[in-house]
Amino acid sequence: MANLLVDERDAKFVLHEQLNVEELCMTDKYSEFSRETFDMVLDAAQKLAENELWPINSDGDRKGVRLEGGRVRVPESFHKAYQYYREGGWMGLAVSPEFDGQGFPISIACAAVELFVAANLGFMGCPGLTAGAGRVIQEFGSEEQQTTYMEKMYSGEWGGTMCLTEPHSGSDVGALRSKATRNPDGTYSIVGNKIFITCGDHDLTENIVHLVLARIEGAPPGTKGISIFIVPKKRLENGSLVDNDVITAGIEKKMGLHGSPTCALNFGEKDNCIGYLVGQENAGMPIMFQMMNEARLGVGLQGLALASAAYMHALRYAQERVQGPHFASMKDPQAPKVPIIEHPDVRRMLMWMKSVTEGMRAMLYFVGHCEDLAAVAQDKAEAAKFKGLVDLLIPVCKAWSSDIGFRVTEMAVQILGGYGYCSEYPVEQFLRDVKITSIYEGTNGIQALDLVGRKLALNQGALFRNFMELTGELSGRCRQNPRLQKVVDLFDEAKSQLMEATIYFAKKGMAGEATIPVLYATPYMELFGDVTIGYMLLWQAEIADRKLREMYEQAGADTPEKKYELLKASNDAAFYRGKIASAEFFSNSVLCLASGKSRALMSGDKTAVDIPRECLVRS
Amino acid sequence: MANLLVDERDAKFVLHEQLNVEELCMTDKYSEFSRETFDMVLDAAQKLAENELWPINSDGDRKGVRLEGGRVRVPESFHKAYQYYREGGWMGLAVSPEFDGQGFPISIACAAVELFVAANLGFMGCPGLTAGAGRVIQEFGSEEQQTTYMEKMYSGEWGGTMCLTEPHSGSDVGALRSKATRNPDGTYSIVGNKIFITCGDHDLTENIVHLVLARIEGAPPGTKGISIFIVPKKRLENGSLVDNDVITAGIEKKMGLHGSPTCALNFGEKDNCIGYLVGQENAGMPIMFQMMNEARLGVGLQGLALASAAYMHALRYAQERVQGPHFASMKDPQAPKVPIIEHPDVRRMLMWMKSVTEGMRAMLYFVGHCEDLAAVAQDKAEAAKFKGLVDLLIPVCKAWSSDIGFRVTEMAVQILGGYGYCSEYPVEQFLRDVKITSIYEGTNGIQALDLVGRKLALNQGALFRNFMELTGELSGRCRQNPRLQKVVDLFDEAKSQLMEATIYFAKKGMAGEATIPVLYATPYMELFGDVTIGYMLLWQAEIADRKLREMYEQAGADTPEKKYELLKASNDAAFYRGKIASAEFFSNSVLCLASGKSRALMSGDKTAVDIPRECLVRS
Repeated sequence: MANLLVDERDAKFVLHEQLNVEELCMTDKYSEFSRETFDMVLDAAQKLAENELWPINSDGDRKGVRLEGGRVRVPESFHKAYQYYREGGWMGLAVSPEFDGQGFPISIACAAVELFVAANLGFMGCPGLTAGAGRVIQEFGSEEQQTTYMEKMYSGEWGGTMCLTEPHSGSDVGALRSKATRNPDGTYSIVGNKIFITCGDHDLTENIVHLVLARIEGAPPGTKGISIFIVPKKRLENGSLVDNDVITAGIEKKMGLHGSPTCALNFGEKDNCIGYLVGQENAGMPIMFQMMNEARLGVGLQGLALASAAYMHALRYAQERVQGPHFASMKDPQAPKVPIIEHPDVRRMLMWMKSVTEGMRAMLYFVGHCEDLAAVAQDKAEAAKFKGLVDLLIPVCKAWSSDIGFRVTEMAVQILGGYGYCSEYPVEQFLRDVKITSIYEGTNGIQALDLVGRKLALNQGALFRNFMELTGELSGRCRQNPRLQKVVDLFDEAKSQLMEATIYFAKKGMAGEATIPVLYATPYMELFGDVTIGYMLLWQAEIADRKLREMYEQAGADTPEKKYELLKASNDAAFYRGKIASAEFFSNSVLCLASGKSRALMSGDKTAVDIPRECLVRS
Repeated sequence: MANLLVDERDAKFVLHEQLNVEELCMTDKYSEFSRETFDMVLDAAQKLAENELWPINSDGDRKGVRLEGGRVRVPESFHKAYQYYREGGWMGLAVSPEFDGQGFPISIACAAVELFVAANLGFMGCPGLTAGAGRVIQEFGSEEQQTTYMEKMYSGEWGGTMCLTEPHSGSDVGALRSKATRNPDGTYSIVGNKIFITCGDHDLTENIVHLVLARIEGAPPGTKGISIFIVPKKRLENGSLVDNDVITAGIEKKMGLHGSPTCALNFGEKDNCIGYLVGQENAGMPIMFQMMNEARLGVGLQGLALASAAYMHALRYAQERVQGPHFASMKDPQAPKVPIIEHPDVRRMLMWMKSVTEGMRAMLYFVGHCEDLAAVAQDKAEAAKFKGLVDLLIPVCKAWSSDIGFRVTEMAVQILGGYGYCSEYPVEQFLRDVKITSIYEGTNGIQALDLVGRKLALNQGALFRNFMELTGELSGRCRQNPRLQKVVDLFDEAKSQLMEATIYFAKKGMAGEATIPVLYATPYMELFGDVTIGYMLLWQAEIADRKLREMYEQAGADTPEKKYELLKASNDAAFYRGKIASAEFFSNSVLCLASGKSRALMSGDKTAVDIPRECLVRS
């Protein structure tokens, strides 16, 4: 079972050899830590993932959750795992010690979360949302609220949720109808129906703290009149917990994620639901916006994690499954049969999976690391630089990783063939589970609009320019290395296509033709992601090439034969060689398409919106 | 519910306005038919699909099939539907009247099958395979075998299967281990284990006729030593049916297609399994090859059908779901909310779904029609021309339609958002069901190798050249029409990219560098499919443009306003306008990418196969 979830060598390569997270330990904030403590916590995370979360992943899928007598029951096996998760202090992994957390950097937490999610996405709903809801209270709650809820939540004693969606209010959050009425004691009475609430009810914790978006009577329409409330399932009254009129009206039957309850919740059916305002009235959306980066990075990690597990399983299967002779001896009926990893079509699929998964991992950890660097920055300008990178890349992390993550699971099914379609193997569950990631936490269409409509324009385009500068520095360096020439050429070309498309969008926007950027936001996002991944892989290839050359030199490997001997003898050398291959493969197979993609983007074709609706819909 | 499965207007456009199937009625073979009889049978098919098959589609998914006491049970609701299907004579729709079939052209049968499959893919396993197995006996069986089995099968009294796959023999059919031993009476004793047998057992019929691939003792290894046997579940002895030692060892739990039993069958566990040789000894593979076109066209139709149903559902949802204001008034909280079909990102998705679904429909019916034209051809050369088109395009029909069909269902889930992920709506089932189509009947990787390794080379490349000539005639004609200029330009450019890549492959093959075409077979297949679909849509746009102009002229619609009025008033006009839009959209969004795709194909990059295996797999 071991090592079928995440390529730990690659995760550590990103953290230590690419990002040098260890340097954080030279700052006050992280002075307690060292590379060793980072690795220790990741090894512990791997053990928890492999020994506790993974073995119950299929249990969650098959048994699913049930609604019994108004209470949601998760599979029995989840209870023990939740205890382990709590006791390990994982909920507070990146929470400041000031709030009893472990205080690890976000980049390290990313690597741990990847492991947990790869092992069991369904299980991770409850701890993930609890930590997220806890963070809202930590950042915006009153001292009293912090005292009442935070420790209970970060310790996992109580669960947490985010209650945004309503039947008529999905992507359009501003349309929500839940109401809050001021009570004389400063609390609010909440009435409303919420749907699609992840872990909206379960029996893992005795209480669940809902963060509910609602409109206070008389508040402005749209997003400007939304407030956020703490609405516990059981509220504290005189030191004991009493029911707070939150009813679980139903749970959804879903394509995947069966281990995670998706609930419809009714608040205040009996007019006895009390909520506690977080922050100011009508500040719900700004608060949500500030939590969004973390949540969206989390969803990106889900796309990565399931891609990772799918790739690892497909890779293992391709080594073990013997089928047909090598294509070069196809016509010889006596030719030995080979494992399917030797078939070029399978290799091509595996290399694609490898390169995009490694690229996503680097992108996501990098963005987590930028958060860390912003937090320890020497001055505001430096902090702003890193924050800007985070803001710019977050929609890409969310959308590209969830879209491509799905595609990787699809390819794993394809590699396993008929077995891939059967529940006996886990890859079809990965596919079903990961599909939700392109939808929740803002659909990928919304992410694309966020990138094109907001992020590109921020600070007169400074975020984008800064990122392009960063990539320019890298390719300038790599251009000196003849061995990376072709990769650099393809990267630079793709990058200039992206820049051209960006300028085209900006011009269209300024000319009052915003339809074009809006219409092409999603394909633009795809291209943006390709270039970002290309950047990550080139960066990695630069490091791997240097280290591999050093190893060759030290070993005196100066012929192809000797080099190959070293690759066979040294896991590290093989890993570095594989890294370079990822960059080469990705640039030839994906970045090569950038010119076509940017051309489609800049075709100016508006058929999709110009066509009268009647031509699509016949009466 | 009506019209949520297949756009019947489009199906009839392809049959009557594009392919002019009516002309078949001028031949002896089809002289009994007319456009009216064609339409009548399709209307009847639509009724059966909508009234009987569709209402039980989700029942099949939720209840699934069970193995009880060695017998597979399908959902109760399937029995009534199966009766309707039998009684309607649908099993023999395209079977010659000489064998008590209805004798309809294959193109018409394609349209009927699309409806049935869109309504219920799981249900269609049994009738589909029964008809296919019946065809094998019709084409290759002895007179006695024909008498014994064909009527029973074409009437649906007995079921049928194809038993190829074994645990160690999937894509590599030649590796199969099932054995046949000659008996003195001319029968054979069969021993072997088969897996992934669609409808390998069920309780819809009293008997099931398995067509089993096995190796006769002493036969050569590999595919050259495979024979094909009729192995009925119950064999006729002295006029009564006796058990034939075929055991259902298990059924698979699958990602989708829950209504269709996927069985593991053990033949001859008690040494009492009798098989009857079909055709000559060791002729199993040639026979299979001759049935392959029909089977692969069938799988292509499955990809189309689920794409079609997914598109129709997404289109309906997008009209009904009101969410957010139009983007142009995004900042006005009072702006009216609009159905999501008005949002550009949703429109873009719908237009993509529309154009590829319509393109696939045209391609698949066209290939069916080529079969029909070959059957009524005046001479051998004409027949060979149409057969050549079929042979060339079959792998594209199978692979492109199943890959893109899956992608369309994915996009439908995306358009429905959270609802799309829930089983309350049918789109997630479409996605799960259609996934198998890229795997069975030869994985899409196998299809790509068939295209690149066999079909391109047949008759020194004549099949490919003929097809390119055909597309050249069309674009030559369309080039005269200034309104189609841009579509033609993009099509011609994509086509020349395809031709360049094809020549590149041929040169590599001749230079002994077959690795390149083998490695890039799948991306080549994608490009080939893009160009084929582009051809179909351009052809349709040519017709639609002419008809629309005629309508404008007749109505005196000479201003944009008057034209729009006509579109609103006339379903036909709106349909034709939509057709042109499909071609425009597809050429700008998909054909634009051809240059990048061909460049990647011709990069010559062999990273995926050159990289030592050790670099992928660490110990």
